Amino acid sequence: MKTVYRGPVFSIESGLVREPGGVRARRDIIRHSGSVAILPVHEDGRVMLIRQYRCAYGKMVIELPAGRIDKGETPLQAGKRELREEVGLGARKWERLLRILPSPGFCDETVTLYRATGFFPSVSEPDPDERIEIRDTPLGAALDLVAQGRIEDAKTVVALLLEKQRAD
Amino acid sequence: MKTVYRGPVFSIESGLVREPGGVRARRDIIRHSGSVAILPVHEDGRVMLIRQYRCAYGKMVIELPAGRIDKGETPLQAGKRELREEVGLGARKWERLLRILPSPGFCDETVTLYRATGFFPSVSEPDPDERIEIRDTPLGAALDLVAQGRIEDAKTVVALLLEKQRAD
Repeated sequence: MKTVYRGPVFSIESGLVREPGGVRARRDIIRHSGSVAILPVHEDGRVMLIRQYRCAYGKMVIELPAGRIDKGETPLQAGKRELREEVGLGARKWERLLRILPSPGFCDETVTLYRATGFFPSVSEPDPDERIEIRDTPLGAALDLVAQGRIEDAKTVVALLLEKQRAD
Repeated sequence: MKTVYRGPVFSIESGLVREPGGVRARRDIIRHSGSVAILPVHEDGRVMLIRQYRCAYGKMVIELPAGRIDKGETPLQAGKRELREEVGLGARKWERLLRILPSPGFCDETVTLYRATGFFPSVSEPDPDERIEIRDTPLGAALDLVAQGRIEDAKTVVALLLEKQRAD
């Protein structure tokens, strides 16, 4: 396959491929370095969600703290950096929940999900191109927002449903 | 924003944007027509999963029946067409579960999730560039595959966790 586009966040490869089973097809694949997302859970069970403008949808989207894995970083290192940058916290306990594939039909991104607890203040260094509001939310209220279609982000829905299972 | 790439499945727009709150940033956005995914549930509670090769990851991925919304289709019409094309079934009952956003940071795709029950045979017309294996799977076994990291697809994980909530 040939790289047909190179941007700051992803590149695109395109080509005619022959797949197992004999299928021959043109595929356009988005190449992405991978992401991490963190479900921060307070001692009282509230979860920390962020709200930010997403240009792709032209609206505010409620999500977990999350971001791209930088070159040379492990997913856990990226998770610790993103939690510090986006909400100004460190966490004593990190638990890997799942790794999910957001769009397997055309994109190679993976998102590794962590659950973080035991917070301590750390220096917040938001990206200059991000403006983020932080909201501590009871789990039940967050799940209501999912049911109402007001939380739609896939990684956030997965993490909240997993947290519900754990709480039951 | 300017279209900088146009492919069969998505296109890309790029540009310097000024967002609410005053952030100015270059954004690359993948424009996609939207997708649907269907959780087919048999009377005995087994769910129907499919297994197909995904070029983006170079491996077989277990997913729900799913696909793109064609021009002029509603999400429900697309769901009915995809269920027929991918597994050769019609369904009497369709329930909309959620709409999820797979990658809000750089892609405008939405995935509308349905739960389908009450099946009847229909004509299977797979796309010539798809080769699909169908597997009827008890819900508990499917959730075990999620916990083991063998089901990673985001829409599939969401639908299975919702089905577990309903079964509890």
